[in-house]
Amino acid sequence: MMRRLHFLLPLFLLGAVDNSHALEASRHTFDNGLRLIILEQTTVPIVTIDCLVDGGARVDPRLKPGLASFTADLLDEGTSQATGPEIARKIDSLGGSLSMGAGQDWIHAGASLLSRDFQTGLELLAASLRSPTFPEAEIERIRRETLGSITASDENPAAIASRTFRAALFGDSPYGHPIIGTPESVRAISRQDIVDFHARNLRPNQTICAIVGDVPEVEALAQMKTFFGDWQGVAAAENATGATPPNSREIAVFQQTTQASIIIGQLGIARDNPDYFPLLLMNHIFGGGGFSSRLVERVRTREGLVYSIYSRLSSTRLPGSFRIGLQTKAENAEKAIRIVREEITNMHQDGATQEELQAAKDYLTGSFPLRLDSTGKLSGLLAQIEYFDLGTDYIAKYAGRVREVTVDEVRAVARKYLRPEGLIVITVGPENGPATESTQAP
Amino acid sequence: MMRRLHFLLPLFLLGAVDNSHALEASRHTFDNGLRLIILEQTTVPIVTIDCLVDGGARVDPRLKPGLASFTADLLDEGTSQATGPEIARKIDSLGGSLSMGAGQDWIHAGASLLSRDFQTGLELLAASLRSPTFPEAEIERIRRETLGSITASDENPAAIASRTFRAALFGDSPYGHPIIGTPESVRAISRQDIVDFHARNLRPNQTICAIVGDVPEVEALAQMKTFFGDWQGVAAAENATGATPPNSREIAVFQQTTQASIIIGQLGIARDNPDYFPLLLMNHIFGGGGFSSRLVERVRTREGLVYSIYSRLSSTRLPGSFRIGLQTKAENAEKAIRIVREEITNMHQDGATQEELQAAKDYLTGSFPLRLDSTGKLSGLLAQIEYFDLGTDYIAKYAGRVREVTVDEVRAVARKYLRPEGLIVITVGPENGPATESTQAP
Repeated sequence: MMRRLHFLLPLFLLGAVDNSHALEASRHTFDNGLRLIILEQTTVPIVTIDCLVDGGARVDPRLKPGLASFTADLLDEGTSQATGPEIARKIDSLGGSLSMGAGQDWIHAGASLLSRDFQTGLELLAASLRSPTFPEAEIERIRRETLGSITASDENPAAIASRTFRAALFGDSPYGHPIIGTPESVRAISRQDIVDFHARNLRPNQTICAIVGDVPEVEALAQMKTFFGDWQGVAAAENATGATPPNSREIAVFQQTTQASIIIGQLGIARDNPDYFPLLLMNHIFGGGGFSSRLVERVRTREGLVYSIYSRLSSTRLPGSFRIGLQTKAENAEKAIRIVREEITNMHQDGATQEELQAAKDYLTGSFPLRLDSTGKLSGLLAQIEYFDLGTDYIAKYAGRVREVTVDEVRAVARKYLRPEGLIVITVGPENGPATESTQAP
Repeated sequence: MMRRLHFLLPLFLLGAVDNSHALEASRHTFDNGLRLIILEQTTVPIVTIDCLVDGGARVDPRLKPGLASFTADLLDEGTSQATGPEIARKIDSLGGSLSMGAGQDWIHAGASLLSRDFQTGLELLAASLRSPTFPEAEIERIRRETLGSITASDENPAAIASRTFRAALFGDSPYGHPIIGTPESVRAISRQDIVDFHARNLRPNQTICAIVGDVPEVEALAQMKTFFGDWQGVAAAENATGATPPNSREIAVFQQTTQASIIIGQLGIARDNPDYFPLLLMNHIFGGGGFSSRLVERVRTREGLVYSIYSRLSSTRLPGSFRIGLQTKAENAEKAIRIVREEITNMHQDGATQEELQAAKDYLTGSFPLRLDSTGKLSGLLAQIEYFDLGTDYIAKYAGRVREVTVDEVRAVARKYLRPEGLIVITVGPENGPATESTQAP
């Protein structure tokens, strides 16, 4: 059975060839469960394919952190059809690119190509997802490179802060370990682990592909059926639950630097939470973007304590994080943390003003089309809309949903979700300052 | 007088509305010398403006490195029409962005906007270039932030390697100092220095603007005339000459890391050098891109010494650099450097094979359209084509120029330009290893 639904996409976003026809993305579900979104765009002779397979670092076995990432890195390093070097030479000869990698929630496999090379690229992508051979030599090379990356990140204060924050916030729950793994686990992962992970998780029923570009819809659909239609198997069931809010903690990691890298945060929400839009606006007002957020205004412009500061609400299947990141001189760290705490308390108690809310709405509705200015960005967004089940009318209704958020709703979500008394504070730098716990950098 | 020439742009690149009309970019020269490129693209309702003003770090006064960058950072921090915070709030309210910054050769001022906001954005951009007021408070804030950035880069091995390489290669010539300046110079630059730099260098006769997007050409031209037509003044004459090739040197910078960050290189060419295309292909084959370059093949895949390695030929007005960059475990640094030296010698002596050349041509011609998949990338390229005077037919003829390069030409430029006996080698890491000079990190 193939079901088919049309996305509603507003004319102004999607490059209508003339004003009488809005281009429409179509949605298809294969009998094997694979979901496919196709958007034909004839303006440039290129095509991008973005596939998301549910099950990234989130489904790493408890004792094998990094397994999803290790598996993803090997997908295009040898398939039943070609060796890794042959695949690399082939994609190079087209001027195109393949990319494979793991995130928190998914394994991503993508290709960017001239549209004339669509079939060749799709064939390489399908073989990578369906029939990787995981050659021993490539496993050892990727293992070596991964260990090198971990070593390099051990010297990066921002990376240390992020890893420490994640561990403190999520603990033993699915997002608690680094996507790339730990040196111990990366050394211990066997070829059989990788083969098993692939068999359990890379299956059509949890795969979503979005194709955007100068390929006729009927051809894109036919080629997808050719290369993915007979893919069989059902992924293993997953039984993951999110983290419970941890107690407030302050952790200092010693590093021989002059600047302190700081992360302050707490649990956020899952992407499908109905409070997403009020929280999106609250985060934007607080520190999410633009030059006039409260954090930039107060900590950077008024107090002159930092070069950059941001807040970020993650988009994940299970509840993710809400975090503030900043870099400052070590001697200013304590003051910067105190001010961020004050601002969180202020937002928690009072919410935002009508003027702030209007400015945030103007920014988010205005910048939305600007963030979709290439085929690759559009295919990535369409795949994520399907992944998070946001509805085929998501793009069309985005601006309306932003505009309908009220000051009362922002105040309510600030009250409901912000936890001024439950913050995790990570400081990586030369002095321990205000921290109550201290760990040595590895 | 307004001269007008049409760029020849191939249909397949530029989003023709239907197949009977190729879209054409137009070129205009104002009486005050400002040059303007306009390309109308109606597929998405956005517009990007990229202006390049000749004279970046290259024209910094000898004793005031960082002056161009300092000036550029202040352009949108207060103008005759609005304060810095007012400008930030205005651009935020449109969801758009302004960006200002200095490079080696130019000051860049750009804007990205919904096309409905074209006029407002252009007005902000014009005021930033023409009538910045350089308020004392903003100067002190930017000074503080710049010093913070320099401090942060002092802890980044790759940044230290790059700065050391630049100083060793270019010496006292115009590209020898960091674009951002030194702590001493940034502390010493006065408001008068900035005002003078602006008056001397930001002038219409060395300004190029490219506008790409959903704005009718006639409107873009009219608005540009409104906001830039009466801009007066002629930039001060410049009398810069490029570097002379330095002697071979090996410099080690001590850093408490486990990985070594290495740059190996020599003088390259100016962008207008007629040997550009043969060198572009030689560099691609050597280590310029893709997965199958000689450096990746040998140093990464075969020897397993690095996670990433690249070679790069810079595009600059005066002769720039040809450099190889890599990161490796400290104990592998000496071997990696030896192999890179061998590969440079091999290329110098023997050039490339027909098979390598064909693969490089396939990659470069195939990937060219993929690198132009957004309005911002296109406006940036059009401005640079004009800046380097590459000809209005550059995009149309790019693939042909790549394809006509011969094995003999690649061998000839490898012989002519590569200097296996004149390499600069910078190693930043925990051991001095093979170096003959050693300096302490700041």
